[in-house]
Amino acid sequence: MKVGVLTSGGDSPGMNAAIRAIVRFGVLHDCQIVGIHGGYQGILDKEYEELSSRTVAHLIHRGGTCLTTGRSEEFKTEEGLRRAAELLDSIDVDGLVAIGGDGTMRGLYHLQEHWGGRAVGLPGTIDNDVYGTDYSIGFDTAVNNALDAIDKIRDTAESYSRVFLVEVMGRHAGAIALHVGIASGASAILLPETPTDLDKIAARIIEGRKAGKSSSIVIVAEGDEAGNASAIGEKLSERIGERCRVSVLGYIQRGGNPTRMDRILASRLGARAIECLKAGIDGVMLGEIDGEIAETPFKETWTKEKKLDQWMLELIAPLST
Amino acid sequence: MKVGVLTSGGDSPGMNAAIRAIVRFGVLHDCQIVGIHGGYQGILDKEYEELSSRTVAHLIHRGGTCLTTGRSEEFKTEEGLRRAAELLDSIDVDGLVAIGGDGTMRGLYHLQEHWGGRAVGLPGTIDNDVYGTDYSIGFDTAVNNALDAIDKIRDTAESYSRVFLVEVMGRHAGAIALHVGIASGASAILLPETPTDLDKIAARIIEGRKAGKSSSIVIVAEGDEAGNASAIGEKLSERIGERCRVSVLGYIQRGGNPTRMDRILASRLGARAIECLKAGIDGVMLGEIDGEIAETPFKETWTKEKKLDQWMLELIAPLST
Amino acid sequence: MKVGVLTSGGDSPGMNAAIRAIVRFGVLHDCQIVGIHGGYQGILDKEYEELSSRTVAHLIHRGGTCLTTGRSEEFKTEEGLRRAAELLDSIDVDGLVAIGGDGTMRGLYHLQEHWGGRAVGLPGTIDNDVYGTDYSIGFDTAVNNALDAIDKIRDTAESYSRVFLVEVMGRHAGAIALHVGIASGASAILLPETPTDLDKIAARIIEGRKAGKSSSIVIVAEGDEAGNASAIGEKLSERIGERCRVSVLGYIQRGGNPTRMDRILASRLGARAIECLKAGIDGVMLGEIDGEIAETPFKETWTKEKKLDQWMLELIAPLST
Amino acid sequence: MKVGVLTSGGDSPGMNAAIRAIVRFGVLHDCQIVGIHGGYQGILDKEYEELSSRTVAHLIHRGGTCLTTGRSEEFKTEEGLRRAAELLDSIDVDGLVAIGGDGTMRGLYHLQEHWGGRAVGLPGTIDNDVYGTDYSIGFDTAVNNALDAIDKIRDTAESYSRVFLVEVMGRHAGAIALHVGIASGASAILLPETPTDLDKIAARIIEGRKAGKSSSIVIVAEGDEAGNASAIGEKLSERIGERCRVSVLGYIQRGGNPTRMDRILASRLGARAIECLKAGIDGVMLGEIDGEIAETPFKETWTKEKKLDQWMLELIAPLST
Repeated sequence: MKVGVLTSGGDSPGMNAAIRAIVRFGVLHDCQIVGIHGGYQGILDKEYEELSSRTVAHLIHRGGTCLTTGRSEEFKTEEGLRRAAELLDSIDVDGLVAIGGDGTMRGLYHLQEHWGGRAVGLPGTIDNDVYGTDYSIGFDTAVNNALDAIDKIRDTAESYSRVFLVEVMGRHAGAIALHVGIASGASAILLPETPTDLDKIAARIIEGRKAGKSSSIVIVAEGDEAGNASAIGEKLSERIGERCRVSVLGYIQRGGNPTRMDRILASRLGARAIECLKAGIDGVMLGEIDGEIAETPFKETWTKEKKLDQWMLELIAPLST
Repeated sequence: MKVGVLTSGGDSPGMNAAIRAIVRFGVLHDCQIVGIHGGYQGILDKEYEELSSRTVAHLIHRGGTCLTTGRSEEFKTEEGLRRAAELLDSIDVDGLVAIGGDGTMRGLYHLQEHWGGRAVGLPGTIDNDVYGTDYSIGFDTAVNNALDAIDKIRDTAESYSRVFLVEVMGRHAGAIALHVGIASGASAILLPETPTDLDKIAARIIEGRKAGKSSSIVIVAEGDEAGNASAIGEKLSERIGERCRVSVLGYIQRGGNPTRMDRILASRLGARAIECLKAGIDGVMLGEIDGEIAETPFKETWTKEKKLDQWMLELIAPLST
Repeated sequence: MKVGVLTSGGDSPGMNAAIRAIVRFGVLHDCQIVGIHGGYQGILDKEYEELSSRTVAHLIHRGGTCLTTGRSEEFKTEEGLRRAAELLDSIDVDGLVAIGGDGTMRGLYHLQEHWGGRAVGLPGTIDNDVYGTDYSIGFDTAVNNALDAIDKIRDTAESYSRVFLVEVMGRHAGAIALHVGIASGASAILLPETPTDLDKIAARIIEGRKAGKSSSIVIVAEGDEAGNASAIGEKLSERIGERCRVSVLGYIQRGGNPTRMDRILASRLGARAIECLKAGIDGVMLGEIDGEIAETPFKETWTKEKKLDQWMLELIAPLST
Repeated sequence: MKVGVLTSGGDSPGMNAAIRAIVRFGVLHDCQIVGIHGGYQGILDKEYEELSSRTVAHLIHRGGTCLTTGRSEEFKTEEGLRRAAELLDSIDVDGLVAIGGDGTMRGLYHLQEHWGGRAVGLPGTIDNDVYGTDYSIGFDTAVNNALDAIDKIRDTAESYSRVFLVEVMGRHAGAIALHVGIASGASAILLPETPTDLDKIAARIIEGRKAGKSSSIVIVAEGDEAGNASAIGEKLSERIGERCRVSVLGYIQRGGNPTRMDRILASRLGARAIECLKAGIDGVMLGEIDGEIAETPFKETWTKEKKLDQWMLELIAPLST
């Protein structure tokens, strides 16, 4: 079997560990592995590279993706999909693994409308917003990166007795913000999934001050309906009568060496992807649910909604007293 | 209700997050919380301190335990247990949460033979060897600490084209070694739970060299039956015909700011401990299994064996080709 | 002798190490040490605390300042200075050490116009813009924090083949940007001290692309005359014909455990401050120049200009080819 | 001009930054640059690689050395030196830069007895024991690595109220131990350069306990005349009547991304090396003394003794009260 592998959409820490596992498992199972550079566009641009067990050495601990990634407009067209299918056929690729978010799964879904090969997806996105897995590859690292940053900001917050608003990634999903918020002991967590009531948050902060709280950290998801951290900061400053400081963590959340969890999840799913392709299982994204590997049809990954854990939402208020 | 809380045995990152959650949830549920310093010995020495929501501020991100810990010989005696029960009664403590490993659960079990109060345990140990939870508080941080260290050692291993043996913690259990090994891309992982065949490992390393591997990292659990890393290093050096380097990671695995996972697990279990005590559920250690909270009778935590994940064991060989 | 100590202006990593040294050296030299909380305003608000060698234990490695800091409008008035002088006299403080930037030195200078006690300043600011010392306490940590962040951003820059603009602190001074830029291998460094020519930078990036550069990092000092990173990013995107990404590092530069250099510099200067006060040397800021301790009259710290190293400026272009 | 570059002896963080600067400056000054792999042995084994500005991209932040390093017995013989000279001539290399410790400088010195080309050395060793520079490339990173580790160990030391002995690198020189000791707030620092009096240290620790010190950290240089940390730990445990814990930091000090200081020092010296070779300055190691570049004849780098700073030695006792 000849298996293509690519990473698509935003890079996420652990993608390299997944690629390494796919290559090494593949080689063991008599597959040839073709790395495709630059995401789906790389199929169209014939950016191919034969991968061996040695090519992927010293890679498991590196952030980013050695195959580089990208977004492709052409691949979204019927013409592009058809051409991609032909190109894959022309180099005898009969299996494909793509690592990315829900957009990546859509890509595989539509490719299969034109292509006869087998395709499997792996959830690689820091946002953890893909249905079909408890955690996506990269999420744990992103949250830990954010926590490291906040542990530093805390030094200044404490030294100045300030209220800090920290904006974390998550345009449509609050998973990063929720985990960062609980784990950093935030006074409030603003999520796109829950209504944001600035009056209530302001009251809470004022109350905290009275109870002797020296500083407060408020976590804001990028996509909160009340606006970005800067806009919210101004509104909140007015309400509490002191100037809130704002920090937007941005790209530092995305990089860096992946954590234990992301490296192991990526290795497990990468290995399993080869087993699936060999066994004729395809059309699914692989994930891990309750410790077991789960197979989710591509379409469900974006049509079904991934919910935030209820027990986590219920921890916010009591823990921030 | 008046609830005592203590940490016992080796410290583990996340204990502070658990204490914070116990205090804040407790206060919300009209409990008085008494911090007991120095582990079980602290009951006997009357090292008590009233804890409030403010006392536990700025604690969630700190390693170690603010209550300090220790081991107590006296508490292991019937006399000591009886005296502890009396002392707890004398200050009207009718609930107790102890955070630690299986020795800590034994302590609670035997205390309850003499004491009428309610007791709940939380698994706090970096070793992840307690039955009744997928992960113990501190394990994730310890493995990530080890990975950070190995990512540094790798620079030297690569620069020198060397074979490095890295000893990680785990006197009786190989969980740390297994996770560190998979996640660091180790050439071999030596565990107390599996037979260690140095000839085979040597053959593997020699074969790797021939295939172009520039350096190799071998992970050794402290308690491997073939000896410690230094002894194994000598035997392996002979077999492969070059001097292996040895690094014993030791205490650096135990400290440092806890990770996302440990902070959230600790917060969740700490909050739940209060709910249990209030609801009359006791005699159990709380853990998390497949994402759900699990209650395990104290005795099972050390009489039942916690097994290593089979799928992880099966990943070792293929991923290290 | 009774010595007051305070931190003023922005917090900087290493302030705690300086406080610790002042207290321990002071106690050894028969001084009483009074910690003043919240900067100069703390004198006026009588926020005093007696400090002992034990109070400052476990502090050397902590970022921020245990005395907290702040800005005071009242202290800038003649009335405020007079009242501060009286208050210091009223508690028999006859020596004062203030740690901060040039604003802090101004504060000491004007206080001495009304107060008969001895005053010594220490340079504590991440900006390294105070005349009279090669490095200020906190600068080395801030630059290393920025480098850690950029090493993460680099993973994404590489994965996407992108141009990244990274804004670092420095409203009036480019020292952080210059050091971060050289040490991160930036393609260009935009400083308030040097003219910024966006056409030239764009040409340079385009040329780099042609020569095979996959990604580029441009460092922008907060106070560059061409605007902030976001504004510059738009102009540069137009010129190079691709969208630049922007990351503003912000407060994460300021916090975190201080580095070796900051801890040792702070310890040395803190100890020396006590020696000066005892020896009757005052009216000066202490610094380190060419490895030796230097004493600079308060007024010179803001009237004389601290220049960027010429040899560093000359390294920028050749190293970024 | 054709310039060879190699790294020799133990790897140290920042070597890559020096190589990058040598290559980029060299190319700008019309030099061809030949990377020699595996240290001096690489000359003899003809392990050559042409280096371009692109080859050294994405290298400035990496620990270790991309040229790998090693020790060579053959190169120490007259025959080996002669052959190396012939080989360098045979590929028209007329300039050579070697980065390493005093052994590396000896190598250059003896090579020049047989070779007519120009040679310049750069101090690359974590030990900071080479005469002719205030700091060697890699020292700052090594000390900061050790401090990060100790900040973790401190969590356990505090949680257990323990005395910890931490062994740091330095077989013949105490520079690492001295800096780590001051910067970690150690209770005692054991150096090869100063007499070690265990009775005195024990008395100091006991006294500290009485004064309320909860935990103590003692830093031991690998080469202290009283033995290694483990041996000293036993002796000290007896004297103070409680079991000291021992941690040997080992190889983790050597790796990891270099710090600001090491990256900039390496870049500056690397650039200067090319300027020297072009200008006909050779036979010297380049260093930085009091902020200025210094040229030291090879022989002096190992015949003259590098002393520890007196002011640092004098800080030990007062700061550890």
